[in-house]
Amino acid sequence: MSDCIFCKIIKGDIPSTTVFRDEHLTAFRDINPAAPTHILLVPNKHIDSVNALTGEDEQLVGHLVKVAGQLAAQEGIAEDGYRLIFNTGAHAGQTVLHIHLHLLGGAPMKYPMG
Amino acid sequence: MSDCIFCKIIKGDIPSTTVFRDEHLTAFRDINPAAPTHILLVPNKHIDSVNALTGEDEQLVGHLVKVAGQLAAQEGIAEDGYRLIFNTGAHAGQTVLHIHLHLLGGAPMKYPMG
Repeated sequence: MSDCIFCKIIKGDIPSTTVFRDEHLTAFRDINPAAPTHILLVPNKHIDSVNALTGEDEQLVGHLVKVAGQLAAQEGIAEDGYRLIFNTGAHAGQTVLHIHLHLLGGAPMKYPMG
Repeated sequence: MSDCIFCKIIKGDIPSTTVFRDEHLTAFRDINPAAPTHILLVPNKHIDSVNALTGEDEQLVGHLVKVAGQLAAQEGIAEDGYRLIFNTGAHAGQTVLHIHLHLLGGAPMKYPMG
């Protein structure tokens, strides 16, 4: 997707603070962090949102979640805890139409989380 | 896990308002909803949290996310939007130690989401 900001970050056309990368996903720090640790994990393949997932994407999406847990450990927040979020659409505040998983932690978060 | 409340719900030993079930997961309404739609999706197999995921669980976890999107459509909230959350540990407010995905929607949610 030529106009997608996350596709440009994945390609290296826009700089980012990358913390992990493999053939399936890229993880980088949110430029406007909402918590002491705020990392975005995005599939290297363009998918608009959770609404667009097919059965073929399940392994990829599960890989995002598992790597997020590994990055939480790397950040030293796995024990105290962290939150993983997929936002879809306007009600949830999805601002970039390339599916991404937020990893948030480093401080207590509000519960309930609406 | 004999003392796990979600394992008891999956087995039917504790009643719940189940909205979807297949061989891999069970989805039921949260008894203390934080949004107009608040559904929990839990794997039928006991896994403590995201910290305990292995590579073998990736397909299962991706299936939770994909089915959550299908349930959002079924609830009529896929277009306006919804939020999917995995909470891990105390900082995130994880209260049941059986991995579960929150599906929240039906009203605008705060952003940022810390």
